[in-house]
Amino acid sequence: MITTDICIVGAGPVGLFTVFEAGLLKMRCHLIDALPQVGGQLSEIYPQKPIYDIPGYPEVKAQELVDNLMKQIEPFNPSFTLGERVDYLAKQDDGSFVITTSDKTKVHAQVIVIAGGLGCFEPRKPVLENLENFEGKGITYMVKDPEQFRDKKVILAGGGDSALDWTIFLSDVAEKVTLVHRNETFRGAPDSAAKVFDMANNGKIDLILSSNLTKISGNGHLQSVSMKNKAKEEITVDADYLIPLFGLSPKLGPIAEWGLNIDKNAIEVDTTDYSTNVERIYAVGDINTYENKLKLILCGFHEAALMCHSAFKYVYPDQKLSFKYTTVNGVNAF
Amino acid sequence: MITTDICIVGAGPVGLFTVFEAGLLKMRCHLIDALPQVGGQLSEIYPQKPIYDIPGYPEVKAQELVDNLMKQIEPFNPSFTLGERVDYLAKQDDGSFVITTSDKTKVHAQVIVIAGGLGCFEPRKPVLENLENFEGKGITYMVKDPEQFRDKKVILAGGGDSALDWTIFLSDVAEKVTLVHRNETFRGAPDSAAKVFDMANNGKIDLILSSNLTKISGNGHLQSVSMKNKAKEEITVDADYLIPLFGLSPKLGPIAEWGLNIDKNAIEVDTTDYSTNVERIYAVGDINTYENKLKLILCGFHEAALMCHSAFKYVYPDQKLSFKYTTVNGVNAF
Ligand SMILES: Cc1cc2nc3c(=O)[nH]c(=O)nc-3n(C[C@H](O)[C@H](O)[C@H](O)COP(=O)(O)OP(=O)(O)OC[C@H]3O[C@@H](n4cnc5c(N)ncnc54)[C@H](O)[C@@H]3O)c2cc1C
Ligand SMILES: Cc1cc2nc3c(=O)[nH]c(=O)nc-3n(C[C@H](O)[C@H](O)[C@H](O)COP(=O)(O)OP(=O)(O)OC[C@H]3O[C@@H](n4cnc5c(N)ncnc54)[C@H](O)[C@@H]3O)c2cc1C
Repeated sequence: MITTDICIVGAGPVGLFTVFEAGLLKMRCHLIDALPQVGGQLSEIYPQKPIYDIPGYPEVKAQELVDNLMKQIEPFNPSFTLGERVDYLAKQDDGSFVITTSDKTKVHAQVIVIAGGLGCFEPRKPVLENLENFEGKGITYMVKDPEQFRDKKVILAGGGDSALDWTIFLSDVAEKVTLVHRNETFRGAPDSAAKVFDMANNGKIDLILSSNLTKISGNGHLQSVSMKNKAKEEITVDADYLIPLFGLSPKLGPIAEWGLNIDKNAIEVDTTDYSTNVERIYAVGDINTYENKLKLILCGFHEAALMCHSAFKYVYPDQKLSFKYTTVNGVNAF
Repeated sequence: MITTDICIVGAGPVGLFTVFEAGLLKMRCHLIDALPQVGGQLSEIYPQKPIYDIPGYPEVKAQELVDNLMKQIEPFNPSFTLGERVDYLAKQDDGSFVITTSDKTKVHAQVIVIAGGLGCFEPRKPVLENLENFEGKGITYMVKDPEQFRDKKVILAGGGDSALDWTIFLSDVAEKVTLVHRNETFRGAPDSAAKVFDMANNGKIDLILSSNLTKISGNGHLQSVSMKNKAKEEITVDADYLIPLFGLSPKLGPIAEWGLNIDKNAIEVDTTDYSTNVERIYAVGDINTYENKLKLILCGFHEAALMCHSAFKYVYPDQKLSFKYTTVNGVNAF
């Protein structure tokens, strides 16, 4: 069991900055995110796009902002659980919480901060009979650890950047890589697409275009995947793994079951401290809602600051919070 | 008369960022500040000190943040009136306002945003008989335009950085510069102090130490200044100008008279949009107060964003505000 002062659900920009504001008040943080990397929407949806309304940055690329936030919180040594969804929340007798993730990681914390953005990014799944039976048994929607695929037969499906990038990457790791795509052309970056066509011509990978997945089979674990082209011809390919990469769509997910007041997929908060209706649970960033809420990164930063000053009383019930400027006091790291 | 959509009182970091948020919604801004430069406390009190809690900046010098904010608002072409205090506010029949400054500059605006920080920085004044009679007639507390002192006899008084820096600067402009200081040593930067001692040794300036100002005289305009040393010996020096630089202390000032609800030198606001009790007047940044207020720069940024979205209805009564991300839409400058 991981033990911390504040457990932050969601490692988007607002979750990350919460670590900083908490750290100034000497509260330690553990962050959990369902994605395999930090940065939330910025890293997942638009890492290379410029943002113009981060105060003091006439222009900053989304991933650059995330990298800077990671650097800013470094002095406070946050710990991370990535690639796991937070599923359950159990209140303890003393008021603290134990959180459980999809991979059964447990975190004990005095305070929970939900910085879950638009919710968990859930993978878009192919429509295939018996799909659930093979999930975790050959079918996976995310590459957390490429070594898992070493010397295996891997089929990837999709036409975006993830499908192209992982095809290129895994071609050096797996025994055999096959990429299946329903169109003739790719949505992903042109140079990645060119590279994939090249590798197919050189026999480094198999490329199956204009085809849709139709069937999966195996005995306890995936063994083969079938697909049909436009002419309705079906072929079957041997496979240890199938990785459908059809994009992610956010869902509020398990958070909806925690007894919080929810309005249109967002958590209602009191703007005096961004607390929810459940004591010791706060919500900051895109996932909360209040009168005149703007889903802006800069608003989440303010919410995180006020929220941490309010949470202090649960972590240090006997101490008085003294407010100091960073300029005068430094970050005063642990 | 200057005409604008929003008149911002105070060009500190929060006033500056308000221009950006207003600009995204196509509202033009005019800023007024009593200081001769923009940047508020950051430029006036701690320009070279690092700030650690600007989100996305592990460290940024105060003046650098101000420079970046100036660059960020450039596309929106704000106009400025610097070195003038806002004194009066007159409501017009149509709901708009006319603001009048200490120098009688008039600005007509649909909306007023008070981003006045700790208030006006008022100069600390020497205790001298007839002081008010010579203010503006030889006595000034601020160097707005150094050319004013060309080929004049100037006495500066004080021992901090401003006194040292302006002594050095004006020694090349004025006919004669005298620096009067009540101690033997200076509070300002050691290398500036060394330079001033050097210039005194070389006869480039007159340096009168351990002495206090005692008398000012003149006929309509300042003509001479007297001072006494520790031995109570009085000397009198001819002077066209006396510039006492004893530091600035902030005062809420005329804003206190505008019918706003004030609590402990701060303006009470409604946190749903940071509006005051007077319609069309908003208050953002250090100058406002509400439950759990933190006097932090990053909080002012959030307040500015929500405030501008609320003010839109007064500037464009017939239009519906449509919220767009800068990443998707750019800053869409005029
Ligand atoms: C194309 C685009 C352009 C944008 N442009 C701008 C812009 O110019 N300016 C601006 O201010 N904003 C912009 N935004 C919005 C901005 O990205 C969001 O406001 C910001 O990402 C919110 O940050 P957050 O930390 O609250 O949430 P997110 O960034 O959404 O991060 C939330 C994280 O929580 C995780 N999570 C959720 N539920 C769980 C769970 N149960 N278990 C584990 N993890 C969970 C998610 O996986 C996610 O990583 C833009 C958004 C998009 C899509
Ligand atoms: C030493 C020090 C260290 C600090 N460190 C930090 C830190 O690390 N992090 C942080 O977030 N904050 C810090 N702060 C606080 C920060 O400086 C303030 O929060 C910030 O300056 C507030 O910005 P503002 O725009 O609201 O007001 P200000 O910066 O105070 O600017 C207000 C402006 O309004 C003008 N004004 C007022 N009344 C009038 C009038 N009637 N007419 C014309 N002009 C008027 C003033 O001249 C001034 O220029 C620090 C402050 C100090 C003094």
